[in-house]
Amino acid sequence: RIHGERLWQSLMDLARIGATPKGGVCRLALSELDGQGRDLVVGWAREAGLSVTIDQIGNVFMRRPGRNNSLPPIMTGSHIDTQPTGGKFDGNYGVLAGLEVMRTLNDHGIQTEAPMELAFWTNEEGSRFVPVMMGSGVFRGAFTLEHAYAATDVDGKTVKDELQKIGYLGDEVPGQHPIGAYFETHIEQGPVLEDHGKTIGIVTGVLGIRWYDCTVTGMEAHAGPTPMHLRRDALQVATRLMQEVVACAGRHGPEGRGTVGMVQVFPNSRNVIPGQVKFSIDMRNASDAACDAMDADIRAVAERLTRETGLAIRLDLVSAYPAQPFHPDCVEAVAHGARTLGYSAMRCVSGAGHDAVYMAQLAPAGMVFIPCKDGISHNEIEDADPAHIAAGCNVLLHAMLERAGV
Amino acid sequence: RIHGERLWQSLMDLARIGATPKGGVCRLALSELDGQGRDLVVGWAREAGLSVTIDQIGNVFMRRPGRNNSLPPIMTGSHIDTQPTGGKFDGNYGVLAGLEVMRTLNDHGIQTEAPMELAFWTNEEGSRFVPVMMGSGVFRGAFTLEHAYAATDVDGKTVKDELQKIGYLGDEVPGQHPIGAYFETHIEQGPVLEDHGKTIGIVTGVLGIRWYDCTVTGMEAHAGPTPMHLRRDALQVATRLMQEVVACAGRHGPEGRGTVGMVQVFPNSRNVIPGQVKFSIDMRNASDAACDAMDADIRAVAERLTRETGLAIRLDLVSAYPAQPFHPDCVEAVAHGARTLGYSAMRCVSGAGHDAVYMAQLAPAGMVFIPCKDGISHNEIEDADPAHIAAGCNVLLHAMLERAGV
Ligand SMILES: NC(=O)NCCC(=O)O
Ligand SMILES: NC(=O)NCCC(=O)O
Repeated sequence: RIHGERLWQSLMDLARIGATPKGGVCRLALSELDGQGRDLVVGWAREAGLSVTIDQIGNVFMRRPGRNNSLPPIMTGSHIDTQPTGGKFDGNYGVLAGLEVMRTLNDHGIQTEAPMELAFWTNEEGSRFVPVMMGSGVFRGAFTLEHAYAATDVDGKTVKDELQKIGYLGDEVPGQHPIGAYFETHIEQGPVLEDHGKTIGIVTGVLGIRWYDCTVTGMEAHAGPTPMHLRRDALQVATRLMQEVVACAGRHGPEGRGTVGMVQVFPNSRNVIPGQVKFSIDMRNASDAACDAMDADIRAVAERLTRETGLAIRLDLVSAYPAQPFHPDCVEAVAHGARTLGYSAMRCVSGAGHDAVYMAQLAPAGMVFIPCKDGISHNEIEDADPAHIAAGCNVLLHAMLERAGV
Repeated sequence: RIHGERLWQSLMDLARIGATPKGGVCRLALSELDGQGRDLVVGWAREAGLSVTIDQIGNVFMRRPGRNNSLPPIMTGSHIDTQPTGGKFDGNYGVLAGLEVMRTLNDHGIQTEAPMELAFWTNEEGSRFVPVMMGSGVFRGAFTLEHAYAATDVDGKTVKDELQKIGYLGDEVPGQHPIGAYFETHIEQGPVLEDHGKTIGIVTGVLGIRWYDCTVTGMEAHAGPTPMHLRRDALQVATRLMQEVVACAGRHGPEGRGTVGMVQVFPNSRNVIPGQVKFSIDMRNASDAACDAMDADIRAVAERLTRETGLAIRLDLVSAYPAQPFHPDCVEAVAHGARTLGYSAMRCVSGAGHDAVYMAQLAPAGMVFIPCKDGISHNEIEDADPAHIAAGCNVLLHAMLERAGV
């Protein structure tokens, strides 16, 4: 069993770097504070006897040798960058749970068959630089190193320059790093475990995600002198489509999700009928077929609305992540760990993207979820129960040991 | 008959002050440019032999004596301030049509029984300083001079200081000015006349207006990990109410209008379920009873939505203007003028507020509408047909002469 208080203390220590007055953390990817956070974790890793390598996109690997070092390492990891108004646990928990596993193995003098590795990935959040999950994405080959290097923040600073400035522009070629299996512990960032009163989520896979930009174009006109039948009100048509995004999610199985998060109305004046409305659509589901079905539904409704109203509707797919099931062996290792340790557990999906999605395309992978208070994340008030924090880490330890062999 | 080309030329000359590259005008109330515009019109008035007085809110009255100067004057007027991206005709047409009436009477040496007056009212648009229709509102006693003086623009400049700076802080007490009858010519700012192929709108009254701010409060959450049944999506509830604003307008007679013009979503991020949505509601109708019925409908739907979803909905009335019928004698004078002159005409309502609304509360009043191209106003591409411009002015001449007596 891991040392719960030590893990909690490390979480609190790391959370001091970039701490916000409201109890959260602001440690944007590749900022000076991210550099300080990285240094702290790397320092702890060296104290724990781990050897450290850094790749060209700034992903950091911390290795504990096994008996047979020709075997690919059993890896765990996550990220330590945060949202601008982020919490103490998102990502950070996964990294420090991995560190605690290493420390626990050291405490008990346990030698594993395969080596074990802890990783943290560069810029998972994607708030300062897009795309999200940048480090794991480059590692996976989802996009090129050059593409990632050229990404700029609002001040025009590039990923490459910022990596160099904080001293994390490594020389290992990304992806040239064998992985035997990958596990990631994370707060759920949703309300399902809490709703079911469970301590451990055995994550079976990650939902497919489709992001769209939608534009409805009508004609702006004065709200007073324009009778209803002579209007071309873009918002009136847009809101029907927004309703449909939610309705559609309910029609395609229990894991269908539909969200309109962002809306812009032009000219956005009280007594002007909107001439144009732009909004985002986020649709998710458990299989790519279900995502395709949702896509077809939305396009059909958009076409019907255009036929009925004459208003043009443009639907642009801006990103798509396929649904990613986790490897049955890894899912079983997590389930077995929870069972052995006597924690209440349930199978669940991850509705959010994680670095584990890219890793699952390279090696058997799995995730361990724990509840977070009220399901709240990406918020300074993000919180988690120390007992759950310890439980998730114990499950990680068991799952990794099962795969690494003792 | 008036001199159509002279009127058109005056419109073009005034439009040069504050002309925008796209062919519109930006001459914000009480700006230096407004001062120049006022000086130009006042200069023309003096050339036409009119005597000029200015009141304490900067309303300007230009008088042509009659045979019997103890009779209250027959007045016409409008405004010369514009929207930031305004056109050449909104307001300016009403003022220069009145000037052209005076010039025409001079050309023909006509003496009227009652005196005639031309007025322009301060800050009708309300873009730089709120409230809208400020000058006519103070004149009417809808709010106090002190209230208007204290209004500030975005730079913190006050109405009183800006009036002084451009030399239009007069000494006449607002409202201490008798009016026998009031007529205002204006572009329709809507598509109805064009849709019916008519030259003259005989305006029977102005719709009642209710402006609301609506706030729907849910709970923000991550769009991925939050299943549909555990969401409190503020936008999903808000869009149902937005639909209802339009539906409700259709249920309460042909002049019902319902518009949502302004929307703000919080936090407005692609993968966050909106926690709060604020939006404006603009509802109009031909009678106060119909406005009350629309108000009751919207409140009932808001309450039902709160019962069904548990989300709080706040509905704040921010402004209300009662429906204002025009005086039957003035409406008839306009109709008679159009008939005599042989113009195609129809009775219609004004969907937008005008200075004439306040004047109608003090004296018999009426309005003359002419079409504007595609119904577009408050836009730099606002346009009107010179033949319509002349026609509206001829109707104004006839209506004023009928009331003033020759
Ligand atoms: N974990 C997380 O917040 N990922 C961001 C991408 C998403 O919206 O799922
Ligand atoms: N004429 C005009 O645009 N008035 C502004 C107030 C309104 O929305 O009716």
